[in-house]
Amino acid sequence: MKINPLRLQQHFEAMSLIGKIGDTGTCRPAHSSLEKEAFLLAASWMQAAGMTTRIDDFGNLIGRLEGSQPHLPVLMMGSHLDSQPYGGRFDGVAGVLCAIEVVTTLTENNIVPTRPIEVISFADEEGWRFNKGLFGSRGILGKLEAGELQRTDKDGISREQALLDFGCNISNFKASEYANGSIFCFLELHIEQGPVLDIANKPIGVVSGISGPLWQTLTLKGMAGHAGSVPMPIRKDALVGAAEVIIALNEIATQIPGAPTVGTVGTLQVFPASRNIIPEEVTLTLDLRDIDLERRNKYENQLLQAINRIAEKHGLTYTLTEDTNSEPRYCATWIKEIIHEQCQLLQLDAPELMSGPFHDSLPLSYVCDYGMIFIRSKDGISHNPLEYSSYEDLAIGCNVLLGTVNTILNKQ
Amino acid sequence: MKINPLRLQQHFEAMSLIGKIGDTGTCRPAHSSLEKEAFLLAASWMQAAGMTTRIDDFGNLIGRLEGSQPHLPVLMMGSHLDSQPYGGRFDGVAGVLCAIEVVTTLTENNIVPTRPIEVISFADEEGWRFNKGLFGSRGILGKLEAGELQRTDKDGISREQALLDFGCNISNFKASEYANGSIFCFLELHIEQGPVLDIANKPIGVVSGISGPLWQTLTLKGMAGHAGSVPMPIRKDALVGAAEVIIALNEIATQIPGAPTVGTVGTLQVFPASRNIIPEEVTLTLDLRDIDLERRNKYENQLLQAINRIAEKHGLTYTLTEDTNSEPRYCATWIKEIIHEQCQLLQLDAPELMSGPFHDSLPLSYVCDYGMIFIRSKDGISHNPLEYSSYEDLAIGCNVLLGTVNTILNKQ
Repeated sequence: MKINPLRLQQHFEAMSLIGKIGDTGTCRPAHSSLEKEAFLLAASWMQAAGMTTRIDDFGNLIGRLEGSQPHLPVLMMGSHLDSQPYGGRFDGVAGVLCAIEVVTTLTENNIVPTRPIEVISFADEEGWRFNKGLFGSRGILGKLEAGELQRTDKDGISREQALLDFGCNISNFKASEYANGSIFCFLELHIEQGPVLDIANKPIGVVSGISGPLWQTLTLKGMAGHAGSVPMPIRKDALVGAAEVIIALNEIATQIPGAPTVGTVGTLQVFPASRNIIPEEVTLTLDLRDIDLERRNKYENQLLQAINRIAEKHGLTYTLTEDTNSEPRYCATWIKEIIHEQCQLLQLDAPELMSGPFHDSLPLSYVCDYGMIFIRSKDGISHNPLEYSSYEDLAIGCNVLLGTVNTILNKQ
Repeated sequence: MKINPLRLQQHFEAMSLIGKIGDTGTCRPAHSSLEKEAFLLAASWMQAAGMTTRIDDFGNLIGRLEGSQPHLPVLMMGSHLDSQPYGGRFDGVAGVLCAIEVVTTLTENNIVPTRPIEVISFADEEGWRFNKGLFGSRGILGKLEAGELQRTDKDGISREQALLDFGCNISNFKASEYANGSIFCFLELHIEQGPVLDIANKPIGVVSGISGPLWQTLTLKGMAGHAGSVPMPIRKDALVGAAEVIIALNEIATQIPGAPTVGTVGTLQVFPASRNIIPEEVTLTLDLRDIDLERRNKYENQLLQAINRIAEKHGLTYTLTEDTNSEPRYCATWIKEIIHEQCQLLQLDAPELMSGPFHDSLPLSYVCDYGMIFIRSKDGISHNPLEYSSYEDLAIGCNVLLGTVNTILNKQ
């Protein structure tokens, strides 16, 4: 039993037209009409595979293939169809389309699973629109935090408004949550988004776990003044302070050559933003990740010390808020073993590797066993229109996922 | 003969309501409906002083008190009523309202000048909306540059569109230009916007000249990628490069302790601006000023070398454009002497000082003699809602301006 690589490629090509930017880019914001369009297309393929489909009140798309024993905990697969604002065609999409292809192949082969299978496209995995991600996957597990619906995007639209506009009933969240024990396991196929497999020249990797991201927001406040007249020694320039924080984070993340630690400032806003005014306030996001939680905690502390030192040096005050703080989460050994077996059956030498990026698997890991399959990313590029994984590699990964699902269905 | 300090204060208070932000701030963008409102209010005061008023096709407000010999070159006074986005109540406003008060006092005293007097509020002195200032004062001198009308603000509105919306006829610029020799001299009263007078405890300063600003725009381009997975050593992070440029400019401007050199990065934009993506492109403005042009040129060269070094270190490409490059311009000795005499008559010990900020006087200096009177700024704060000059100091400065105008009218 094998998946249909041509159909899979056609699905990728059709999906890439929704929110297309440039030749190979995608901008499909969470809870947007473009995401809705993507959901309707994916839902049509789910229905063709024999699934019933629904959009829940968190804005997740869910397709369900009923099992012969409908009350058994579900085998869940999926990822997300929202994209980065300047993203590619494969991030998230691969996990949804390959899961649909697996179910299509099962039903084509007249396989009726004992337990139900659900394919899910989680809402707002990416997190850039409201500066907090994994919304749908945390939502179904009852893990939303206070104030989340009041977060606003750059146009001032709140998450609450965006969900209402999307057709969600935010007073009905409870009905969309999954009860404890109702998910048997979660499988996610994803592009690597890093260069390890490409450098090793391997199409497929078996994920060992997900690094824990620490997301913070720092606001530095100084004193505005005329750029032409305030003497340098009495300035309180928030942007000079921010520049030193950016460099400090970079130095902290690179202090051990070759370590997998990464530190990034991805956004920065200046107020009042006139070329003629000394910046009074600068807000920036801090992203620190490591496979080793102890080391990450040590680095977090170093960063805090650096911020204190820089603020004092430039006469700045600051606020530092924590938006996300996740520990590393490891994949279930028994699922990894099945994925390895499937790779061996296909004569693939699939290395095991950690994931620097987080995924919807991260919140799921707290309620069920999970496994992930990585597909090689050309030059390690992702979150960029140049993101590329070949259709050959995607088809191979999809067959590994098919074999894994079939084995789990037969074993458990 | 003295000005009316109560009326002057009332004019400041009335003007401060237009575009008011917070308790003491102002946001009155160039060519905006708020600036138009300010123009109509100032024009009503001009008319009460016996002036005829018009708004020209560059968006300048001009009041004219006819002279007994209308064809003589005009004595011009003024400044601007547009403000910084997060500005105060006195920057620019002081020069317009004190000029109106001077003319009001002259006509109240039945003085009919030989040469015409014009009071002008120049359009877009501040320059933040379209990233290039002194628009109206360069406009009347035929010194606009190619492409200026196509510059856009943060909402994508072009200067051309903003002028059309303001009611200007952009095909009629020629008619609003001043012929060579038609301006006799230009006088500008302005708040100091720096701490020199406040530290010296003097209400009034006599300006010796204006430092030349160098304004550049730098765009650094690297490579976007996932913040969680691209290893640090292979990143091309445009924001880390920008941070190093900000620090380099700061170090260059402070290399001689106590020197009046100032260097500022006032704006910075990140693309694609997701906390989860390594910045691909960063655009920032560079502002470098010095009284000593030779030193400024040397520092400009140091900055260029730093940019080259930083770009190479991080694998970035860059473009560097020059938006403004002015040499220092000195005030006319004969006008300075008259201002000094007037200060002595009022028993003021008025120090002479350079202006770090530029003013509408800068372009005027190329076509006529000019003089400037500075008013003490509390704590040197400007381009900030906390900007403050007392009504007592402003009235003293206004009397110095009145005496100066009267002396010039009688002498010349």
